[in-house]
Amino acid sequence: MAFLMEAHSGLSAKIVEEAGFEGIWASGLSMSATLGVRDNNELSWTQVLDMLEYMSDASSLPILVDGDTGYGNFNNFRRFVKKLCQRGVAGVCIEDKIFPKTNSFLGENQPLADIDEFCGKIKAGKDTQEHGDFSIVARVEALIAGRGLEEALKRAHAYADAGADAIVIHSKKSSADEILAFCREWNNRAPVILIPTKYYRTPTDRFREVGASMVIWANHNLRSSIQAMRDTCAELKRSETLIDVEDSVAPLADVFALAGAGELEAAEKRYLAASNGSAQGVILA
Amino acid sequence: MAFLMEAHSGLSAKIVEEAGFEGIWASGLSMSATLGVRDNNELSWTQVLDMLEYMSDASSLPILVDGDTGYGNFNNFRRFVKKLCQRGVAGVCIEDKIFPKTNSFLGENQPLADIDEFCGKIKAGKDTQEHGDFSIVARVEALIAGRGLEEALKRAHAYADAGADAIVIHSKKSSADEILAFCREWNNRAPVILIPTKYYRTPTDRFREVGASMVIWANHNLRSSIQAMRDTCAELKRSETLIDVEDSVAPLADVFALAGAGELEAAEKRYLAASNGSAQGVILA
Amino acid sequence: MAFLMEAHSGLSAKIVEEAGFEGIWASGLSMSATLGVRDNNELSWTQVLDMLEYMSDASSLPILVDGDTGYGNFNNFRRFVKKLCQRGVAGVCIEDKIFPKTNSFLGENQPLADIDEFCGKIKAGKDTQEHGDFSIVARVEALIAGRGLEEALKRAHAYADAGADAIVIHSKKSSADEILAFCREWNNRAPVILIPTKYYRTPTDRFREVGASMVIWANHNLRSSIQAMRDTCAELKRSETLIDVEDSVAPLADVFALAGAGELEAAEKRYLAASNGSAQGVILA
Amino acid sequence: MAFLMEAHSGLSAKIVEEAGFEGIWASGLSMSATLGVRDNNELSWTQVLDMLEYMSDASSLPILVDGDTGYGNFNNFRRFVKKLCQRGVAGVCIEDKIFPKTNSFLGENQPLADIDEFCGKIKAGKDTQEHGDFSIVARVEALIAGRGLEEALKRAHAYADAGADAIVIHSKKSSADEILAFCREWNNRAPVILIPTKYYRTPTDRFREVGASMVIWANHNLRSSIQAMRDTCAELKRSETLIDVEDSVAPLADVFALAGAGELEAAEKRYLAASNGSAQGVILA
Repeated sequence: MAFLMEAHSGLSAKIVEEAGFEGIWASGLSMSATLGVRDNNELSWTQVLDMLEYMSDASSLPILVDGDTGYGNFNNFRRFVKKLCQRGVAGVCIEDKIFPKTNSFLGENQPLADIDEFCGKIKAGKDTQEHGDFSIVARVEALIAGRGLEEALKRAHAYADAGADAIVIHSKKSSADEILAFCREWNNRAPVILIPTKYYRTPTDRFREVGASMVIWANHNLRSSIQAMRDTCAELKRSETLIDVEDSVAPLADVFALAGAGELEAAEKRYLAASNGSAQGVILA
Repeated sequence: MAFLMEAHSGLSAKIVEEAGFEGIWASGLSMSATLGVRDNNELSWTQVLDMLEYMSDASSLPILVDGDTGYGNFNNFRRFVKKLCQRGVAGVCIEDKIFPKTNSFLGENQPLADIDEFCGKIKAGKDTQEHGDFSIVARVEALIAGRGLEEALKRAHAYADAGADAIVIHSKKSSADEILAFCREWNNRAPVILIPTKYYRTPTDRFREVGASMVIWANHNLRSSIQAMRDTCAELKRSETLIDVEDSVAPLADVFALAGAGELEAAEKRYLAASNGSAQGVILA
Repeated sequence: MAFLMEAHSGLSAKIVEEAGFEGIWASGLSMSATLGVRDNNELSWTQVLDMLEYMSDASSLPILVDGDTGYGNFNNFRRFVKKLCQRGVAGVCIEDKIFPKTNSFLGENQPLADIDEFCGKIKAGKDTQEHGDFSIVARVEALIAGRGLEEALKRAHAYADAGADAIVIHSKKSSADEILAFCREWNNRAPVILIPTKYYRTPTDRFREVGASMVIWANHNLRSSIQAMRDTCAELKRSETLIDVEDSVAPLADVFALAGAGELEAAEKRYLAASNGSAQGVILA
Repeated sequence: MAFLMEAHSGLSAKIVEEAGFEGIWASGLSMSATLGVRDNNELSWTQVLDMLEYMSDASSLPILVDGDTGYGNFNNFRRFVKKLCQRGVAGVCIEDKIFPKTNSFLGENQPLADIDEFCGKIKAGKDTQEHGDFSIVARVEALIAGRGLEEALKRAHAYADAGADAIVIHSKKSSADEILAFCREWNNRAPVILIPTKYYRTPTDRFREVGASMVIWANHNLRSSIQAMRDTCAELKRSETLIDVEDSVAPLADVFALAGAGELEAAEKRYLAASNGSAQGVILA
């Protein structure tokens, strides 16, 4: 069972990679929150794409993108898939709700997409992807919407029939019961991915036992950074000095190292050497 | 004496505001690092502008932007100033180095801009700003470049003559001696801003005593978030469960609150009420 | 009666201004076609915004933006309105169809938006606009959708009640009869704007007689440039020489003049003079 | 001898392709002018990249990009090359001047880049390109700068030594004499590309005789569209009717055809059929 860790920026993508995870979950909630907006498609799809490009450039890990509802109909989704492939993203997950979306943990009885329309979207995405190993994951929101296990299974089967490479079954309950029940019924017809943000107390072995292929820690880099920045801001506001902060934050040298300062230093030797170490030499005509 | 706290995203801007700081320092190092690139003008000026727009939209605090060397000559800087005013940014700080810049804490003997050329840039910026209270701050890098106090003072006077609203005097030494000497000689001809990243052990009252107007905590939100994300990633990689992480990170509810979920909920009642609470109602012709 | 001329780029906006028109119609069809995509919301709303910013920067004329259906629900539209105000755009027109839209001249029986939902969108936009004189124009697509005059009038009244500053009544017929009938019934309750792309043979005085406030020439800069580029490409492909082309295209000097080369030349004298005319002078430490 | 035709947008790229040219010259002057700004690096490199992406998506022709001076030093150029490869662009041409650039047809005695520094930039680009067939073309501005034939040849040899795939030798004289002299001396050591914008009266066979590999018609789509839009605007301003304009501009149907409306119509049948032709069907929970 593989684990994806959330990232929301080039920097957090690098940190996920250095920690040894198998892949990155580019959370829509986290990217939105980082940029200061709500998880309601307030970012345009190209604004999301811009952040994904930073992440893809920053890390060699496969990135699974939280693609919300695909930013419109099948045609909007085709455009998104094409650009994700071009930017080197490994896959996209779309959920069977309506554009503009509402975060799954907010509100009640969110409307679901028409099954056939959503299947057409999956097919259009699969027909568009430029690399054979690009993945399109279908996220089933039936449990979130309070529509029950039967509806969830019906949708999961339809999406797998339409070509989805894997299924995310999502829940906002603190108990994993409905998730585990789904997995048992589903019986691994296609790989299943779980996001235990709300049922975080469930031991991970329960997910293994029901055959889950992947678990996503969906927003914990974001939430840990919020906590840390709040603590640091409060301390600096109170104390008005860095003395007590310096040792609790990453060294400045780590910032440069994470950004790759060493590579540039070496490259300057290679590409600027001929001009005697000065990049600024000019000949004034 | 006012304190500016670094931010590098819409989210961190909000956290600076809720902590009660007087303003935000939009650090070039931090914005670059967040997006996964180096502090060597690897971001285009419009990529920086995009992040600043998120920050300006997210916070009502005045934002002082780290504008590096102005992204080229006076004309490039004019374009940047015009766009900063349009995006609601309060001011910009430019440093007297050469495009593309190198971070002040890296390398030795960095070349400095020609004084007259830099003064022309300041003047061009002041003539371009669309709001009377927009500030253009000149950052003197003479001490960073090892050029000594006389050169620093000469440049600071020239930049003030050219119209700079304030001076940043910067140092990479762990002792504040040269900074304090500058302030004493300068004698508050124009407001002075200090960035004690390296001389962090110096008590803040020393800065007050020499008449500094403002102190910038320049990268500590970034560095605290790096530390926190690394800790969280390591813990999740090791334990493979959220159980021990949930209580050490900000609650999910805080993520929604920071993004302003409440405002949208209220707006939906106001603007969607007429259609019976459903945004998705359509009439099929 | 005022006339708006279509533009789709900074350059075409300048040309509209030099021709003496009262304002610019930023056509969604033209902007999409210029960038090589379809008029089906293939551009994200921020990609449209980027092009509008070039246009607003390039011209001092008021710009009325073709905002399609508002790029989602009332909340997406609020974000768009806020940014339009920030970029100096004068107004936006939204049409009562469904996202993603289809061009009005394609297909039959396009579905229309729910009236109440569309009115909520108008209200949200009016409550969001930052300048009192920003205009929100409601485009009635009932005639396009084959729903008849009564439906068109019902919708127009509802939109005016909701706060729309003007109404666009649109038709794809080659006869203006249904348009003129609408105008007579409407009796100028709010200003009416016409787009006679299809009923181009109707003399403009007919529009005056029924009290139209404004006429939009909606895509003719685009279409004239297509014709011209095709002709020039064909000629160059055939003749393999510029000799016969030079006199049929705008002089190179006009390209520089349109871009404002003279202003920069003057500015270089002002801001670079002190450094002896060289912007590249540097001091190597 | 191949011919490249200038394009400056997705639309013009399509028109170049339908005319049968071998490739596209993405002119910096034309892209800048289209967006309403000057050819002085007023666009950021990512703004240029955005337009190039539209062009690359719109056309299957190889695109040679006018990369000005590379947008900074070797490191900025590396970033640009990496992104060009990712966007499917075929090659980039850089010129040996200083950032920010001035158009070659403006001013006198423009300063040139240091030869070694420029060679380092070429090497860095070649080491960065992700596809073996990506081309880096070195544009020699020595003649433009009034530095004479010897300097031009010296630079061309240095750039070829550094790995340039081809040489552009540029002139702003109305006579091609210095260009032809260069070509004779150069003797095809590496492919030579000519841009006869100013010496347009020279018969194309003269270029063949001296062994030129490629000729670029560098800004004639732009200039023809300026002329056409001016004519159309003037006519509409004067006549206040479309009657006399309709037949002189491309038909509306051509706008849809150029954008690919047919493909979308077919795709809607494939991906929306299952939901009975309605993309808007929703299930309200």
